[in-house]
Amino acid sequence: MSSTPLRIGAVLFERFELLDVFGPLEMFGVLPDRFELSLIGPQMGPVASSQGPRAHADYAYADAPPVDIVLVPGGIGRVQAIVDRAFLDWLAGYCATSQYVTSVCTGSALLAAASLLDGYRATSNKRAFDWVREHGPRVEWVPEARWVVDRNRWTSSGVAAGIDMALALTAHLFDTDLAQRVADNTEYEWHVDPHWDPFAALHGLV
Amino acid sequence: MSSTPLRIGAVLFERFELLDVFGPLEMFGVLPDRFELSLIGPQMGPVASSQGPRAHADYAYADAPPVDIVLVPGGIGRVQAIVDRAFLDWLAGYCATSQYVTSVCTGSALLAAASLLDGYRATSNKRAFDWVREHGPRVEWVPEARWVVDRNRWTSSGVAAGIDMALALTAHLFDTDLAQRVADNTEYEWHVDPHWDPFAALHGLV
Repeated sequence: MSSTPLRIGAVLFERFELLDVFGPLEMFGVLPDRFELSLIGPQMGPVASSQGPRAHADYAYADAPPVDIVLVPGGIGRVQAIVDRAFLDWLAGYCATSQYVTSVCTGSALLAAASLLDGYRATSNKRAFDWVREHGPRVEWVPEARWVVDRNRWTSSGVAAGIDMALALTAHLFDTDLAQRVADNTEYEWHVDPHWDPFAALHGLV
Repeated sequence: MSSTPLRIGAVLFERFELLDVFGPLEMFGVLPDRFELSLIGPQMGPVASSQGPRAHADYAYADAPPVDIVLVPGGIGRVQAIVDRAFLDWLAGYCATSQYVTSVCTGSALLAAASLLDGYRATSNKRAFDWVREHGPRVEWVPEARWVVDRNRWTSSGVAAGIDMALALTAHLFDTDLAQRVADNTEYEWHVDPHWDPFAALHGLV
């Protein structure tokens, strides 16, 4: 166990998906002795979600301090973000200095577009899986998984799956009992099995 | 079905619980034709969560436009909010003009302190249930429930339970198929039964 909290940086962009960010951050945030959270956006200040409500970025991309764990969400804004070369270049550099690179939902397509998943196994949102595949030709996409771990890359399936991945990462970094306690205290029924994925079949992927 | 979206106002206070707010707002926000979301805070601008990350309030309490559905979260900041008479008076007046009054986690204790649950059945976070009971002597507290509906008051259990309640409210207002589609699209395993509550036993309430 580290004596100083691990720093987590959640990368916001205009029209990010609310729960992709705040599901995992809720879970990590229950343990302030273990994790220290920050929001990173195009600029410091408000960044609009897909759903409308705005989060307040603590840092602009350009000024973001290094973190131990990067978290990249999806959302409608992925369509703009994935063709924003300056953003992808920044993301590639930022992730290169972090210990873990994580994504929720279509965030893995952004990682792929930033060449951060070349030769890695990864998963993504099941409803948008075709779009994701198109944007990640050098990734070994796993169509049926709640989340996938390959070396230091942790990618989860759609939206709510990020919560399960965050708890699994907490278990990996510390211990399973602690992660289970976080789930119990937030009254969340944690899916502990990364292979649990009824949504793959629902969206015709298996 | 209404032709204009129902307005939802989420009430922020310093150190609100992240998922209490953004779990339900994710679900409602998937349906922009049905729901329009706003964040209401002590002042317009950033409001810190229990977990650290800040949300950006669209309106100050004093200037908040009327809404159809009020959503009140819990969080560590409940301890200050529950003795803030000006806040509770504002909350009582604001809820009086709305069609539905909803809460997540210890948010129901704030509703109780604002005399909004007198004579109502309600539930709350199971870990903080004793504290909640103390602050709501005129409420019929239900110790084992994922969420409770009594007339136009919808109160949910701790943190993640708000997501299930939001989907149930969507089903009530529109239809169950629509709510199920929201759950499927966000890859969320919806607990459709309001009596499902393993956390009551876990925290010694039954």
